[in-house]
Amino acid sequence: MNEFQLIEYFFKPILSKRPDVAIGIGDDAASVKIASGMELLVSTDTLVSGVHFFRDEDAFHVAFKAVMVNISDIAAMGGVPCWLTLSLTLPEINEHWLCRFKEGLAQALETFNLALIGGDTTRGPLSVSITILGQVPLGKAIRRDGAKPGDAIYVSGELGGAAQALRFLMDKTPLSQDEKVLMQKLQVPTPRVDLRMMLQQYATAAIDISDGLSSDLSHICQASHVGALLQASLVPIHPLVKKYQGTKALDFALNGGDDYELCFTVKAADRSLFQQELIEQGFCCFFVGCIDDKKTIRIKKEEGRIVPLTAAGYNHFSMPL
Amino acid sequence: MNEFQLIEYFFKPILSKRPDVAIGIGDDAASVKIASGMELLVSTDTLVSGVHFFRDEDAFHVAFKAVMVNISDIAAMGGVPCWLTLSLTLPEINEHWLCRFKEGLAQALETFNLALIGGDTTRGPLSVSITILGQVPLGKAIRRDGAKPGDAIYVSGELGGAAQALRFLMDKTPLSQDEKVLMQKLQVPTPRVDLRMMLQQYATAAIDISDGLSSDLSHICQASHVGALLQASLVPIHPLVKKYQGTKALDFALNGGDDYELCFTVKAADRSLFQQELIEQGFCCFFVGCIDDKKTIRIKKEEGRIVPLTAAGYNHFSMPL
Repeated sequence: MNEFQLIEYFFKPILSKRPDVAIGIGDDAASVKIASGMELLVSTDTLVSGVHFFRDEDAFHVAFKAVMVNISDIAAMGGVPCWLTLSLTLPEINEHWLCRFKEGLAQALETFNLALIGGDTTRGPLSVSITILGQVPLGKAIRRDGAKPGDAIYVSGELGGAAQALRFLMDKTPLSQDEKVLMQKLQVPTPRVDLRMMLQQYATAAIDISDGLSSDLSHICQASHVGALLQASLVPIHPLVKKYQGTKALDFALNGGDDYELCFTVKAADRSLFQQELIEQGFCCFFVGCIDDKKTIRIKKEEGRIVPLTAAGYNHFSMPL
Repeated sequence: MNEFQLIEYFFKPILSKRPDVAIGIGDDAASVKIASGMELLVSTDTLVSGVHFFRDEDAFHVAFKAVMVNISDIAAMGGVPCWLTLSLTLPEINEHWLCRFKEGLAQALETFNLALIGGDTTRGPLSVSITILGQVPLGKAIRRDGAKPGDAIYVSGELGGAAQALRFLMDKTPLSQDEKVLMQKLQVPTPRVDLRMMLQQYATAAIDISDGLSSDLSHICQASHVGALLQASLVPIHPLVKKYQGTKALDFALNGGDDYELCFTVKAADRSLFQQELIEQGFCCFFVGCIDDKKTIRIKKEEGRIVPLTAAGYNHFSMPL
């Protein structure tokens, strides 16, 4: 099986049809039409075997997660994901692996009405590189650098679940029902594209929580030249993390990566209207603290003490192999 | 040095300014504005160390070529390249390597007025994955599937030079002046973006010659459901390939990859006008044969015999390591 047969056999069948794709896979480049009044969002993320996923991980989850990680970046801009290209580096043609990969990719594309419009298949150590393209109304993209002192800080869901699931996987014990629930958080995350209209209307800054809240909030603060004070009692810790980690649960929620929820800021004056709309639309976001002008991030512990919060998220170049 | 410092130190300084980039590197996604009346072209290509470039190759050339390979795909659609994302997988932080890589990337961006708008840096076996975005007037993208029987087949320049250069490199002999000239073809190719207005006006189909003329013309023929008859005497062989390969020179020109010239077809009725405009605009393209309805590619040898031409270009999954 050569590169062309591989594309023909595995990827042509899952090409979803979007009317805005003028030329899809199979030419030198794809061609798509941007809707009137929209600007283009572009993001890229690579997952490397042994670094971002286990070498023996089910290829269904590798594919699904690679797409979700990318969608999450578009969600953090308040955009809608539309198209993607896939660059797949394979050490060999393993048909079972490719079948599972195709199934995971197909499910990801279908769930978010995405079109796969380009790809490259090369031989080499296993990695998956995706570039995702999305759209957002002109001038409405939500940046990291718009937070102002006084803004309320929100997170879009419970945190720490993916980090706890990773801990289970590393322990390699058979999975209980609790653990299977958490595994979904790690292997089948759901990026928060559903919040885009709310974000476009209310968010002054946003980021997706891929490396951990402490780390990702620090990116908002650095870009916006502000600081933040979080309330430990308000950080939404996943209940199963509390159950398994006890007093360490807050650490998992603050520093655990891979949750793919969003962290965003809302003007103080808009807060009550925003919260009312959240309820009306059935969303559950959590207020966790406020932006201030202190240039550092601090956290108020349950007992009242305020301590500096160090960004302790994931860093590829400091992780031991 | 972590991922963020790496981006800050190596890639922020080379971010070119294009007024259509609303949000550049440093956010969850970049945001760009497509010009009115244009559609978006998207292509992706990955270069893997040890497969697409030598492990000890100067990182300047790795970066430069990775960009050129991608630009060539946009050129083959008749488009203009505008923006790109870079996904760089590194086994370690080698500052000398990164400096050379940055210099090659900077030169590539400057040469083609491109903006680097996104990136991802991960740890793993060395590879460079680029997704390039370009623009073409709505409906004007040149596909592979538009060739019709009777169309004239052109190539945009002399062929075989890059394959000959690769042969020199594999022989590992010290380079003569001849060889240095050819090395430019391999290491610093110039994609044919300059031909885009001519292609938009005249080409019925086009492809870039990355895998070799025999292989890439076969993609046009398959996509267009046509055949082709080439004239061996008309195939433009690079003079230094003739000098070093003698009777094998035609083989190099037909099957050697990496030249990044274009192969395209023009309606028979447009041929004389097209050739006249080529001269007026100072371009030199070569007529090499005609599309026909035979469903195979054949070549008429200098002595008059017509023989089948097998697509013998580069295939990643059939190359021995």
